[in-house]
Amino acid sequence: MGDNDDGDIIEHHVEEEMEKKGSRSHAGSSSFLESVSPSEGEGHSGTQSSHRLLAYSDALISIIATVMILPVAHTKVQDDEELRESVQALLATKIAVYLMTFLIVTVAWAAHIRLFQVVVRIDDCLALLNLACMMLITFLPYTFSLMATFPDNILGILLFCGCVMVIGVIQSLMVLYAFSRPFLLNEQIQISENQTFYKHHILKVIMRVPLMCFLASIASLIVFQLSYALLAIVIFLPYISQFLKWCRSKAMGQVEESPDSMLYYTYLPNEPLSKDRVEAFSDGVYAIVATLLILDICEDNIPDPAVVETQFGGRLIPALLVYGPEYLAYFGSFATVGLLWFVHHSLFLHVTKATRLMGLLNTFSLAFVGGLPLAYQLTHEFPRNSQNELEAIQISCVIIFFAGIFQLAIWVVALYSEQETLHPYVRYGGREHVFMLAKLALYPCVALGTFFLTCILSKFSASIFHLMEITVPFAFLVLRLLVRVGLALLRLIFCPDRPDPRTVVEEEEDETRVPFNTLVTELS
Amino acid sequence: MGDNDDGDIIEHHVEEEMEKKGSRSHAGSSSFLESVSPSEGEGHSGTQSSHRLLAYSDALISIIATVMILPVAHTKVQDDEELRESVQALLATKIAVYLMTFLIVTVAWAAHIRLFQVVVRIDDCLALLNLACMMLITFLPYTFSLMATFPDNILGILLFCGCVMVIGVIQSLMVLYAFSRPFLLNEQIQISENQTFYKHHILKVIMRVPLMCFLASIASLIVFQLSYALLAIVIFLPYISQFLKWCRSKAMGQVEESPDSMLYYTYLPNEPLSKDRVEAFSDGVYAIVATLLILDICEDNIPDPAVVETQFGGRLIPALLVYGPEYLAYFGSFATVGLLWFVHHSLFLHVTKATRLMGLLNTFSLAFVGGLPLAYQLTHEFPRNSQNELEAIQISCVIIFFAGIFQLAIWVVALYSEQETLHPYVRYGGREHVFMLAKLALYPCVALGTFFLTCILSKFSASIFHLMEITVPFAFLVLRLLVRVGLALLRLIFCPDRPDPRTVVEEEEDETRVPFNTLVTELS
Repeated sequence: MGDNDDGDIIEHHVEEEMEKKGSRSHAGSSSFLESVSPSEGEGHSGTQSSHRLLAYSDALISIIATVMILPVAHTKVQDDEELRESVQALLATKIAVYLMTFLIVTVAWAAHIRLFQVVVRIDDCLALLNLACMMLITFLPYTFSLMATFPDNILGILLFCGCVMVIGVIQSLMVLYAFSRPFLLNEQIQISENQTFYKHHILKVIMRVPLMCFLASIASLIVFQLSYALLAIVIFLPYISQFLKWCRSKAMGQVEESPDSMLYYTYLPNEPLSKDRVEAFSDGVYAIVATLLILDICEDNIPDPAVVETQFGGRLIPALLVYGPEYLAYFGSFATVGLLWFVHHSLFLHVTKATRLMGLLNTFSLAFVGGLPLAYQLTHEFPRNSQNELEAIQISCVIIFFAGIFQLAIWVVALYSEQETLHPYVRYGGREHVFMLAKLALYPCVALGTFFLTCILSKFSASIFHLMEITVPFAFLVLRLLVRVGLALLRLIFCPDRPDPRTVVEEEEDETRVPFNTLVTELS
Repeated sequence: MGDNDDGDIIEHHVEEEMEKKGSRSHAGSSSFLESVSPSEGEGHSGTQSSHRLLAYSDALISIIATVMILPVAHTKVQDDEELRESVQALLATKIAVYLMTFLIVTVAWAAHIRLFQVVVRIDDCLALLNLACMMLITFLPYTFSLMATFPDNILGILLFCGCVMVIGVIQSLMVLYAFSRPFLLNEQIQISENQTFYKHHILKVIMRVPLMCFLASIASLIVFQLSYALLAIVIFLPYISQFLKWCRSKAMGQVEESPDSMLYYTYLPNEPLSKDRVEAFSDGVYAIVATLLILDICEDNIPDPAVVETQFGGRLIPALLVYGPEYLAYFGSFATVGLLWFVHHSLFLHVTKATRLMGLLNTFSLAFVGGLPLAYQLTHEFPRNSQNELEAIQISCVIIFFAGIFQLAIWVVALYSEQETLHPYVRYGGREHVFMLAKLALYPCVALGTFFLTCILSKFSASIFHLMEITVPFAFLVLRLLVRVGLALLRLIFCPDRPDPRTVVEEEEDETRVPFNTLVTELS
């Protein structure tokens, strides 16, 4: 390697560090040349596959989205009040913080996916910029806490807007940096002729949210209520517009998308959401929710040695038996979280492509999964057979029901465009179609059934509820068997002559409702 | 599909659920036939790739290993005592619980890796059994808490041993189940002729730890101190034996391994540890550590509205400025965790195979990374310029130093067998060798330097420490530049005639010490 080469590179590095904003000017050919020079070339040396960076970001984002349930779950509910009132009074703020955090963090996550669909390889500089991004994203929950505690003060909003604007600037820097080194980019863009158009378009999309935050922060100086409205628009805009688009396409038939409107949401029209990253994000949420439970157990359910000495005469087992319901609650909740993950895993195994609507439904499902530690906390907090205990169980059922029903909704939505999104086995009429439906419907049905049981039986207790939670895994073990027995019985009754395709058939378990034409295909 | 087929499968399922232990008897040919029958066949329907199951398990295990630092970090240290004494008195137990949890969980994780090197495809039944395993693993920290709080009571030990034995039974069930369906197994074993030998060998390895726990639980009934010794052996056995083996191989030259002794540690001699899973586990630890910090901020650093009203006349900004050091501590700690991840990421990018010793060093590094929330808590807890504050900074430096030095040790160990473990670029003499050394050495050197600064300068404060932490990323940004400038200067001084290969050359930054023969290779 000659002297000149080295000098050039050093010079270039100075430029890069000192005036990153200026790097737009010398994009294109000069830096592409550099990319094939041996010192900065592709391969292992200068650039790296972004896979692990994305996995780490997914882990960080999913944990930060979920961990804000802890302050909610740790709120002590006073026993003498009515549960419903105390929930309203004490938890509303914290639940609002949790939900806002969850939603805004998923928005940030979606933006992160989009960005790294364009930038497919990274180098050290991009990795460090991404870490700076992550640091600011993890700081967002604090700004929400401020907003929730001091709703009349504009400081929370200003801090939030400031963070979002800085994130936007960092992401723009990353885009500019990547476009100045085209070998970092997606191949589709790398070979495209109008890279400049792409660059400007992507920058425009990225800067939209920071710009709205800028407006919101200015608005907050005048009428601060207005800035909350603007923020709500920022958070929900992608969801609302997606929903409207979906409604329109259902109402008016398949509308041909203009390439521009597609690019507005994603830079890669043929893969709206990366399935891998949806899975990684979901795994993170399920894992942290399952683990938050044991943290509570370890912190709260170790008896004080002095108390054991005085009240139980030094015998540990009776002292621990006092916590019996807590252990039951722990195992019950872990089983629920684990099985919801299991259903999610089974479903996404057969999903070949994730659309944005499916991603949205997945987010809603995960938001309810994140609420499970709250359910755990509530169900073991109240004395046995009180009205509060029943209401706590009902809240748990509602949380589990919604977590499950949104998973089912993902599948239903996927069935609408099953040619693109689903594996043939689980398509309408496929071999595993009925079984998958049974799997997805099990939790919503159990939750609904339990809810009505609590209304009828006043003797229903939290312990029974947790025991039920622990027995659900066995239902999954025998589910395939039950579905098969059901199908065999059906065949005996309705034998070979083809029945009305619209007939809905009852299974052993009421949750496995099978459209009959599927059955016929399966059995023939 | 005919009647008979269905009947067989239902019958088989009954067998499977009711008497799983009996499934050993009909292994081999009969179930292999079944594997090619359409209803249970390979592909998407019955079996699944285990990738996502492993990712989820890694996330769960890494979070459970790290989250036990929270009770440690939340211990309130009394300000009037000396920090060192209060640390000894209050934290020793909790730190012991944290370290024991971390070590035993990593042992369980290593066993999990081994198991899923044999079982490469899963089905629903294996997924559910794995979840049951995970549930028991997450329960282990509670048994440690019991042991630490009641060291004289055997209940904690009995509970722990019970959990480990049940985990062993479940894992044996998984092995038996997988061997009864050979299409789930690793191809190497699938085509091997003596599958029965493999099965018995693997079962023997899996049952070793539960057996020792059984002995420990019996011992605990007689002399409970003995059972602690047995447990310590269980936890450290793999590490100690690995260390002895390594020492022996260094002392006596490369000893030819007998295939038996290799199989004792891993079922796949050519890949002792799965690099992907080491990365996934490390990502989980780094992510949870980074996120625990904001949880503290959100719970503790939101001022009470009443206090703001009375003490600050309703003005929020002065009330928040009180927390200034906390914000600084948060950003400083996040930067440190993020950059330690970054260094880890850079290192493993160039690692092609992870040996067991590298995995062990990685575990030690992660255990110290998990201690960072404690460092964060300590550094902002004490009044400015107190002796306690300096000692808290020193503890932080020690934690960071060891986290970094073990990362460096991974690389050094990898260099010993660089042909197998490292990418050519970073091998001794490779193009990126010096740069990688500089990256890995940066944190230990900064931590060491800061430690000595605190000894010399009594004015050194936590704020300066956190500011230093925040500036380290910029050191990484300019590191490549500095290394290059250093190399250019060296070339000017020692130009083309080849100098003594043993000369050690000083860089701009004292951390980049470069063996000179590397330099020569790089520059020529």
